[in-house]
Amino acid sequence: MKNYIKANEWTIVEEGFDAQLNKISESIFSIGNGRMGQRANFEEKYTGETLLGNYVAGVYYPDKTRVGWWKNGYPEYFAKVLNAANWIGIDVNVNGETLDLHTAKVSDFQRILNMKEGHLERSFVAELPGGNKLKVSSKRFCSIADDELAAIHYQIIPLNFSGNVTITSSIDGDVKNQDSNYDEKFWDQVNSNMANGTAYLTLRTKKTEFDVCTAAHTLIKVNQQQVTVAAETLTKHKFIATKLSYEVKANDVVDVYKYASNVTSQNYKKEDLLAAAEKAISRAIASGYDKLLQDQAEAWANKWEEGDIIIDGDVAAQQAIRFNIFQLNQTYTGKDARLNIGPKGFTGEKYGGSTYWDTEAYCIPFYLATAPQQVSKNLLIYRHNQLQKAIENAAKLGFNSGAALYPMVTMNGEECHNEWEITFEEIHRNGAIAFAIYNYIRYTGDQSYLAAYGLEVLIGIARFWKQRVNWSEEKNSYVILGVTGPNEYENNINNNWYTNKLAAWCMRYAKEAFELVKSSDVDEYLRIVGLTNFKEEQELADWTKIADQMYYPFDKKHNVYLQQDGYMDKEQVLVAELAAEERPLNQKWSWDRILRSCFIKQADVLQGMYFFEDEFDLETIKRNFKFYESRTVHESSLSPCVHSILAARLSDEEKAYEFYLRTSRLDLDDYNNDTEDGLHITSMAGTWMSIVEGFAGMKVRDNQLQFNPFVPSQWNSFSFNIGFRGTQLKIKISSTQISITNNSANEIEVKVLNEAYAIPTGETEILFKEVCV
Amino acid sequence: MKNYIKANEWTIVEEGFDAQLNKISESIFSIGNGRMGQRANFEEKYTGETLLGNYVAGVYYPDKTRVGWWKNGYPEYFAKVLNAANWIGIDVNVNGETLDLHTAKVSDFQRILNMKEGHLERSFVAELPGGNKLKVSSKRFCSIADDELAAIHYQIIPLNFSGNVTITSSIDGDVKNQDSNYDEKFWDQVNSNMANGTAYLTLRTKKTEFDVCTAAHTLIKVNQQQVTVAAETLTKHKFIATKLSYEVKANDVVDVYKYASNVTSQNYKKEDLLAAAEKAISRAIASGYDKLLQDQAEAWANKWEEGDIIIDGDVAAQQAIRFNIFQLNQTYTGKDARLNIGPKGFTGEKYGGSTYWDTEAYCIPFYLATAPQQVSKNLLIYRHNQLQKAIENAAKLGFNSGAALYPMVTMNGEECHNEWEITFEEIHRNGAIAFAIYNYIRYTGDQSYLAAYGLEVLIGIARFWKQRVNWSEEKNSYVILGVTGPNEYENNINNNWYTNKLAAWCMRYAKEAFELVKSSDVDEYLRIVGLTNFKEEQELADWTKIADQMYYPFDKKHNVYLQQDGYMDKEQVLVAELAAEERPLNQKWSWDRILRSCFIKQADVLQGMYFFEDEFDLETIKRNFKFYESRTVHESSLSPCVHSILAARLSDEEKAYEFYLRTSRLDLDDYNNDTEDGLHITSMAGTWMSIVEGFAGMKVRDNQLQFNPFVPSQWNSFSFNIGFRGTQLKIKISSTQISITNNSANEIEVKVLNEAYAIPTGETEILFKEVCV
Repeated sequence: MKNYIKANEWTIVEEGFDAQLNKISESIFSIGNGRMGQRANFEEKYTGETLLGNYVAGVYYPDKTRVGWWKNGYPEYFAKVLNAANWIGIDVNVNGETLDLHTAKVSDFQRILNMKEGHLERSFVAELPGGNKLKVSSKRFCSIADDELAAIHYQIIPLNFSGNVTITSSIDGDVKNQDSNYDEKFWDQVNSNMANGTAYLTLRTKKTEFDVCTAAHTLIKVNQQQVTVAAETLTKHKFIATKLSYEVKANDVVDVYKYASNVTSQNYKKEDLLAAAEKAISRAIASGYDKLLQDQAEAWANKWEEGDIIIDGDVAAQQAIRFNIFQLNQTYTGKDARLNIGPKGFTGEKYGGSTYWDTEAYCIPFYLATAPQQVSKNLLIYRHNQLQKAIENAAKLGFNSGAALYPMVTMNGEECHNEWEITFEEIHRNGAIAFAIYNYIRYTGDQSYLAAYGLEVLIGIARFWKQRVNWSEEKNSYVILGVTGPNEYENNINNNWYTNKLAAWCMRYAKEAFELVKSSDVDEYLRIVGLTNFKEEQELADWTKIADQMYYPFDKKHNVYLQQDGYMDKEQVLVAELAAEERPLNQKWSWDRILRSCFIKQADVLQGMYFFEDEFDLETIKRNFKFYESRTVHESSLSPCVHSILAARLSDEEKAYEFYLRTSRLDLDDYNNDTEDGLHITSMAGTWMSIVEGFAGMKVRDNQLQFNPFVPSQWNSFSFNIGFRGTQLKIKISSTQISITNNSANEIEVKVLNEAYAIPTGETEILFKEVCV
Repeated sequence: MKNYIKANEWTIVEEGFDAQLNKISESIFSIGNGRMGQRANFEEKYTGETLLGNYVAGVYYPDKTRVGWWKNGYPEYFAKVLNAANWIGIDVNVNGETLDLHTAKVSDFQRILNMKEGHLERSFVAELPGGNKLKVSSKRFCSIADDELAAIHYQIIPLNFSGNVTITSSIDGDVKNQDSNYDEKFWDQVNSNMANGTAYLTLRTKKTEFDVCTAAHTLIKVNQQQVTVAAETLTKHKFIATKLSYEVKANDVVDVYKYASNVTSQNYKKEDLLAAAEKAISRAIASGYDKLLQDQAEAWANKWEEGDIIIDGDVAAQQAIRFNIFQLNQTYTGKDARLNIGPKGFTGEKYGGSTYWDTEAYCIPFYLATAPQQVSKNLLIYRHNQLQKAIENAAKLGFNSGAALYPMVTMNGEECHNEWEITFEEIHRNGAIAFAIYNYIRYTGDQSYLAAYGLEVLIGIARFWKQRVNWSEEKNSYVILGVTGPNEYENNINNNWYTNKLAAWCMRYAKEAFELVKSSDVDEYLRIVGLTNFKEEQELADWTKIADQMYYPFDKKHNVYLQQDGYMDKEQVLVAELAAEERPLNQKWSWDRILRSCFIKQADVLQGMYFFEDEFDLETIKRNFKFYESRTVHESSLSPCVHSILAARLSDEEKAYEFYLRTSRLDLDDYNNDTEDGLHITSMAGTWMSIVEGFAGMKVRDNQLQFNPFVPSQWNSFSFNIGFRGTQLKIKISSTQISITNNSANEIEVKVLNEAYAIPTGETEILFKEVCV
C-alpha cells in the first residue's frame, strides 16, 4: 500500500521524483483513447527502471504457450496484448550531454493526470552532470475526438546556459513484451521512410500479420516562433527518427510539438496504410496542437456529462471514482465491436488476452448506464461474432450439435488460457455472457437484439449446458461435475451452486427468448431455426426438464445455499480468526492449503444472489451474506463490489462503504503491490457499481428505473449522471432527498424507495420520509 | 503395437535393419549395470534418427522448471536423469568414406540382447556408397561384476577391398538432454587428457557439481595379432578421441577392443577421480576382454539363480518375463542406498527424477524375493536418509512438528514435480512408503529395521496424516479433502477410499511399531523419542482416535467401497460400452471429459484390497473387483498387474492371464507407441508380481511362505526362483503339483492351498487334490 498520490477532485498528482515509484506511476498515469494507449513512460531517454508500454487495440500476437504438463484440449498459444512501436521518444541533448532523469539532479518534478480534459502533464527541473540546468514540461494525450491521433507538447527552457540543444524525435519499433514466453520479439519491419518532415514506420506482427503504421511529425518553435532547423533523419532496423539541432540562449523557450498517428490493417487495406497515416498526420498539422487539445477537452466533457459521479465531502473518494471512470473510458469507447476490455487495458501486458468474463459480469452495467446504447451492444456483438469459434472450442472438448463454450480468455474467439482447472472448468463464464444479453435488454428495452443477435448465442450456450449436465441416479437430479466457480480457491468441484443456478437460468432464458422471437418475428424465427438446425420440440423440452430438475446444494443446518458439494466437510474457520500475517493467503499459503481451507477468494453464492436478487427474500440474502462474507478473503479484485452492493441491499451501510473503499483506490494506493504491472481496469467497473447499484440502489425493473438510496455517513451527498433509454439524467442523493434532473424533453417515471414518481424535464426533488444515512 | 521382436527364451532378437524402428530398439536393447547404462545406440557414426542415451546413476541436473501458471509451494527445479558422456563412439572410415548405416546399403543386420549373459550384440554387412563392403559385428556390456567398467568388442572385416581403415574411438561429452526445459547443456568440462593410450574426460554438472570421469582405452588386433598402429589424439571441448589407422587387405579381421570406465565424485574425492578411472581401466586391461565377458556371464548366472522365472509351453511369455526381470536387474542392483529405480531406468530421459511411489508399491516385492535382503533394505534406507527433506517438504506446504511428506518425484529427497494436483495431492505415496516398511519386515522378519530406521519414518508419516485430516461436523468423522488417488483421472477429490484407508493404517502401524520398539529396545526407544521430540501419550492417542473415526465412502446400492465422495453422481458407463476408437482416452478425449467421466485410469480401491487383502472376505473383493474392473481403462502401466493378482485370488484365471498379458510385453511389442522414449522399468516389477503373487499365489503370513497356485491353461508349467530368509528356493508349478526345491541346509515350512508342508533340503513334490488350471 502506497500513499503518494495527492488527493484532488479532477487530477491525479505526483509531486517529487521517486525512481522507486516510477513503474507504479507509469501505470497510474497511463493514457488511452480506446484505440491506442500507453503507460506514462518518459519522452526523453531514461536509463532507470521502467516498463515500456505502447499498445494498439486489437493487435495481438499468439505467443507459443508455456506449459508445465500438457493436457488434451489445451490451446497452442496465448494471445498477448502487444507492446507496439514507441512513438513518444523525444531525446534531448544539451551541449553533448543527454537528458536522463536517472543521472540528472531532478527538482520540482510533478506529474499530473488531468482527468477532466484527458491529458498527461509532467514538469521538472534537471541539472545535468555537467552542470547545465534546464526546465522541462510536457503534455500529451491520445485524442478521443480523432482516435488515430495523439500529440505531445514538450517544452525546454535552458536555465543557466547557452549552446546547442538537439532533439531526437523517434519512432522505435524494436520493442519487446516483458511477458514473452520464449523471449522472442513479435514484430517485423515492413517499411520506414521520411517524407515532408513526417517519419513513417510500418511494422507487421509475426504469425498474425497485423500491419501497424506509426507516423510522427515533429516541429519546433523557439520563443513562440516556428523555426527551421537542421534536420537529420536517423534510421535503423525498426527505428526512425528526426534529429533537430538548435543553438539557444539561456531562458529561450523551446517548444517541441510532436503529432503521432497509429493506423492498422484492421481498418485499412495494407497497401493503403501509409496514405491513411499521412492523412491522419495532415489532419493533426492542419488543426494544430491547441485545437487538438481543445477537441480532446470537449470530447472528455461529453464523457463526463454521460457518466460523472460527484461525491461531496470526500476528496479522496471523489478522485478515486473519477479515476476509475476515466480509465474505463480510456480503455473502451465502444466504437468497434471487434474490440473488448483487457484486464489491464493499455496500462500493462499482464494477463494477455483482451476478454474475460469480467466484461459481461462487471463492465456491461457501467457502459449501459454511462455510454450510448451502441457501446454495450457492441460488447455483446463481440461475442456474437465469435459464436462459431465458441462452438469450435466446445467441439474440441467433446461437445457437439452447436453447443458453444466461450473461452476463458480470448482475443479473436479462440481460447488462450491453458490451466485445466480454469480453461476447462470455469465454465460459469458462459452463463455471464447469457446474463449480459438479458441485462442489456432489461436496461435498454431493446428486445430486437434477441432476433438479430442474442438468440443464436443463447441457443449455443443452452446447448452446452444441456450436454454438460448429467443425470445423477444418486441424487435423482441433474448435476454439473468438475467445475471451478468464480471462487478460484476451489477447483474441480461438483455442483457449484452458482454454476448450477446460472446453467438452469440460461436454459430457461434461452427458451423464453426463443419463444419471444417465434411469436414476434416469424422470419427471424425461421432464419435462426435453419441456421442453428434447431430441434424445437426436443431441445426446448430438454432445457425445461433439466432446469426443473437441477440439483442445488443446500446446508440445512445453516439454512444457506452451499457453495459446492462437500463444502461443509471443511474445517469451518472464519476470516476474522485468521492471523494478519497469514494474509493474503495467495502469498502466504501453499496452493494445497488454500484449496483445502474453507476460505473463499470471491463468494460465488453471493454473485448469484446479486444476479438473481429478485428470486430471494431479504432474510435469505442476509443469511447467505453473513455465512459467506465471514469466509471470504476477497483476494480477487472483483469480489468486494458484490459484497458492497448486497450489504447496501441489506441496509448494512457500514459494510457497504467498507467494501467500496477496498475497490475504489486499489490502484491509486497500490493496495496489492502490483500496480506497476498495470491497472485493474475491469474491476474499476465494480467500483462504479458499488456506488450506483449499491449506495443509490439503482436497478431497472419492468422497464423502469428504481432507486433505493443511502448516503455513506462520510459523505455529504453524491450524484451521478446516467443515460436511460434516450434520457440523460443527473441523480443527486443526500441524506434527506433525491434530486433527479431530466435533461430530455420527455417525462419519465421512476420509483424511489418503492414509490413511483413522474420526472418531467428539469429538476425534481423528492424528500425522503426518513433520513437515509 | 509392433511385432518385430523374434521370440526366443533367452534373447531378444531383431533381424533386418529398419530405421523406423531404430529408436524403439535403442530402448529395448538397452544395457546397464545399476551404476551406469545406455541405450542401444550404434558405436559408429549414425546420421539417421536416434535418441542418444548414456546415463550414470545418481548424477542429475536440477533443470529450471517450466510452469504454465505458478502455484505457491512448487519446487524451483525438476531434477533430470542426465545424458552423460557418450563413451561408445567407434567411428569407422574406410578409404576416406565413413561408415554410417543411414547412408550405407545394409544387409544381414541383426541385434541381439543376450539376457542370459548380459550383453548386446549387433552384426551387419554394409556397402558404402563408394562400393566398399564390410562386415561388422559388435558386442558390448556394462559389467555387473565390476560396475565401474564396460567393454566393447567391435570387429570389422573388409569384404571386397584393401586399403585404409581408420577407427576414431571417442568420449563425447558434448551431449544434451532432449527434455532440457530451456535447451541448455548441463555439463562443463573439468579436464581431458590422453595418457598411456587411455583417454580421460572429466565433466562437471552445472549447479549440482557432480564430477564424472570417463575413461576409454582402445586397442586393435588384426587377424588375432595385437598391432601397433599410428595413433593420433583428437581433442575438442568436451571431447577426446584416439584415431587409429591401419592398412588392411580383404578378409583381414580387425578387432577393436574398447574398455571404458565411469567413476563419479559420489564415490571418490574429486581430486582422486582421475586415479580411480586409471585404476579401473588398468583392471580391465589386466583382465582382458574375454575374462571380463566371462565374469559378466557368471554374475548374470547368479542373478538368474536368484530370480529366474521359467515358463514351459509359451516362448513369447518366457521371453517377456525374462526381459522384465533382466531390465529390473540392469537398473537397480541395490548396492548403494543413494540410488533408486527411475521409471525409465537407463533407457531414456522421460519423467526425469529417479524415485516415484512405484518403488515401494511395485518394486519392493520383486527385490524382496529375488535379491539379497540388503537390496530391498537399501531401497527403504533411501527414504530414511531423505526423511529430513520430507519434513522440510511438508513444512513448505504448511505442516509442522516433524510431519513428513515424501516427494512425488525426487532425486535427493527434494520434490521435483510441479503439477499441483499431483505434487500436493497425490499424497498416498506417503502411505506406500510406510507399507513397504511393513512389507519388508513381513517378508524378511527383520524387526530390527524398525528401531534402526523404520520407526522414525513411520512417525513422520503418521504425523503428516494426523495434520492432513480434518474433522467433519457434517460426517461426524475425520475426512481427507483435496487429494488425487492412484487413479489420476480424478483430481482434487474428497475422501479417496484408498488414501483414507492407507492413512488410517499408517497411523495404526506407526503406533504398533512405536510400541514394539518401546517394549523391545529401550535405548532405541529413548533415542527416537528424543530425536523426534515425540509426545507419546498425546500423539499415540491422536493417531488411534483418527484411525478409529476415519470416514470411508461406501455405496450401499452396489455394496462397494466408493472410490471417492460423489463418484456415484457420475454417469455410470462401463468400459465395455466404450467404442474402440475412443481409446486410449488420454489420447482421444479432452482432459475435462476424462475428469468428469466415471472411467478409472488405475483402480485405487483394488490397490487397497491388494495391500490389505486379509481384511476383506472373498465376496467383498469379488463385488469390488467386478464393479471397478468394469470401469477401469488401465491407462497406467501399473494398473493391470493388480487386477491380475486379484483375479487370481478370485480364481478368475482367465482374467488373471488376460491382465498379465497386458503388462508382460508392453515394451517388447510397443503397446502404447512410446517405447522409443525408454522402457517402463517400474511396471516390469508388476509383471513379476502377476506371476508370483498372482498365478502362484505366493504370500508371507505369520513368517511363513504360502502358495495358492494355478497354471494358466496356455502354459504347461511355470517355475521361479526366490530367496526367503536365507533359503534359496525353486518353485515349480504344474496343473497337478507344486514342486519346491530347497537349496539350503535348513528345512522350512510352507503352506500350499492352506495346508502346511515341511520342505527339507532338496526337492519336495506336493500333488494337488484337484487339478489347478
